[in-house]
Amino acid sequence: MSDLTSDDFLDGRLTIAQPRHGYRSGADAVMLAAACPASPGESVLELGCGAGVASLCLGWRVPGAVLTGLERQGDYAELARQNAARNAIPLRVITGDLARMPAELRSESFDHIIANPPFFQGGTAPGDAGRGEARHEETPMAGWIDAALRRLRPGGVVTLIQRADRLDSLILALAGRAGGVTILPIAARTGREAGRVIVAARKGARAPLRLLAPFVMHAESSHLKDGEDLSPAAAAVLREGQPINLW
Amino acid sequence: MSDLTSDDFLDGRLTIAQPRHGYRSGADAVMLAAACPASPGESVLELGCGAGVASLCLGWRVPGAVLTGLERQGDYAELARQNAARNAIPLRVITGDLARMPAELRSESFDHIIANPPFFQGGTAPGDAGRGEARHEETPMAGWIDAALRRLRPGGVVTLIQRADRLDSLILALAGRAGGVTILPIAARTGREAGRVIVAARKGARAPLRLLAPFVMHAESSHLKDGEDLSPAAAAVLREGQPINLW
Repeated sequence: MSDLTSDDFLDGRLTIAQPRHGYRSGADAVMLAAACPASPGESVLELGCGAGVASLCLGWRVPGAVLTGLERQGDYAELARQNAARNAIPLRVITGDLARMPAELRSESFDHIIANPPFFQGGTAPGDAGRGEARHEETPMAGWIDAALRRLRPGGVVTLIQRADRLDSLILALAGRAGGVTILPIAARTGREAGRVIVAARKGARAPLRLLAPFVMHAESSHLKDGEDLSPAAAAVLREGQPINLW
Repeated sequence: MSDLTSDDFLDGRLTIAQPRHGYRSGADAVMLAAACPASPGESVLELGCGAGVASLCLGWRVPGAVLTGLERQGDYAELARQNAARNAIPLRVITGDLARMPAELRSESFDHIIANPPFFQGGTAPGDAGRGEARHEETPMAGWIDAALRRLRPGGVVTLIQRADRLDSLILALAGRAGGVTILPIAARTGREAGRVIVAARKGARAPLRLLAPFVMHAESSHLKDGEDLSPAAAAVLREGQPINLW
């Protein structure tokens, strides 16, 4: 890839090369990493790792976590490898499609899976949130969850971040296969509806669903300084790499 | 029924006789009524109306709403009729089981359905929130939703209140049959996870799911005066009969 930007994450603790155009990771990837409860020595597979932002944020917070990323697009996979080397964080990146899981991953199981499934499948546009979109997305979302649960050891945890309006797709895909479903709404400001959700679940668990209090990104209900008024909780995650404790 | 209490709702605007022991309605029924967006002249069916609290709260707020309650237990149905008469609110109460919908209701469709499905089916205890409970409850919850959607006109709205840990059952039962699913988490205090959810959906609609900011019942994070420190929003609903606007 030629036209790259060099972006700071975790207040400059990580420097990540990303394509100037195309898919770029941001706060969602950092939030996803923060919500994964991996411990040192545990294995983590990221489905669709892109340029590696979520896995590398996790690796920064949990040295000793054994990180693997799966990425369908070869140029992003190569970028993730370069970003791992640049930040001196061990990350194995495998080029391959989660719908046709590479053989070397089919023989492995992981303590944790993380993923930020793409929001728009089948070429539907952001504003086109109707039945057509739901139909297009249903199989893909189920495919992501299916791939995650197959690669997870029993009792392992899958952690996903997603647009809030796809919470139903997530719950449908997890139903009967994972328990302890834990939903963290993410809202721009106090009192606003959720724009994102983090959903975590434990493979084969029987614990009941939990709907947590929202994680609020911005501190004040003002539009004057959007992007500069992170809530203390959001600043701890996005700038300091602190975890989000769902469990 | 002999051993009854006389309970004030909406700050004494309604007086409701309820059995001292057995199923008693409280804040959940009032919240359910507040979340139903019925207008004067529209028809509302409450599935499992018990002593009539939710329907009568709705009738108090929306004079001219055409109210029907379905109740399986004859003594509760009779109590609901008496409570309607006592409060001078027209409420037709039909004794019957939603799993074997009475013929006079099978021929009708409604603008709105409201329900507070019982939390514990099949004799499972409150603490027993495992797979056994889920299995027992799956069919019953699906039965409630199925009955609701069958009695709803196209474009009509079903509004339910339920324990938050059963959100997955609700979403599974609504999937593919109703859209615009709107989830209102209800939390005891700011920052707490939801204890209840109100879930509303529109039959045959295509709008995306929305996860709203929590409705917080108590104002301060203090245990000193539980029950006396309603939040302004909760006081408006529980004491003044104000609506909760989900739509």
